[in-house]
Amino acid sequence: MLQHSSIDAVFHALSDPTRRAIVERLAKGPASVSELAEPFAVSLAAIGQHVQVLENAGVVRSAKAGRVRTVAVAPKALAAAERWFASHRARWEQRLDRLGAVLDVPDDEGDATVSPPRKRKR
Amino acid sequence: MLQHSSIDAVFHALSDPTRRAIVERLAKGPASVSELAEPFAVSLAAIGQHVQVLENAGVVRSAKAGRVRTVAVAPKALAAAERWFASHRARWEQRLDRLGAVLDVPDDEGDATVSPPRKRKR
Repeated sequence: MLQHSSIDAVFHALSDPTRRAIVERLAKGPASVSELAEPFAVSLAAIGQHVQVLENAGVVRSAKAGRVRTVAVAPKALAAAERWFASHRARWEQRLDRLGAVLDVPDDEGDATVSPPRKRKR
Repeated sequence: MLQHSSIDAVFHALSDPTRRAIVERLAKGPASVSELAEPFAVSLAAIGQHVQVLENAGVVRSAKAGRVRTVAVAPKALAAAERWFASHRARWEQRLDRLGAVLDVPDDEGDATVSPPRKRKR
């Protein structure tokens, strides 16, 4: 099991859409930082920083050969974060049908889907 | 499917160990903010702020009756975030056996478990 601080870092790493897109790209296979940067309208340096956040969280690994840094996904940290959901899901799903009785909210909110997202305070 | 910004918010909400502990507690059933605060050596106001972050992310819902705010887990946002892992897992697991060939790293690092965590730059 990942330590708390490691799961913190994995979830933090995944809270950014560019970093998630990098992980999705790496699911297809390893890539250089330049290749990772291609789809994005940001600098190579910015992608390098995103890769560093992912690597510090253990979500990717990288190695440099000459001037090229190749990055690959590191599935075990991702699997550990996914297990956090799985280890609690059964219990929170059991609760779903009881919310309406406990919270003074209309039934339709109790059954609200997440798309479109519910009203959020920003 | 959650929008990008919503998944960002869910992962950000879960990147804090106190907020994850709150969600784990709520998996057992709804609780007041005071009840949620009990295990923690932080102020009620701090727990209230954590609950607000979770609620803004759609991870919990709350309702106030008199002076008591009751909080409940909202499983659908969590399920959507969990699906992000599931939708990519198969592909990144396929890559695991090929990393050693691509990255110039020792085999034992390629097979490294996440516990203890690998060396991290802080």
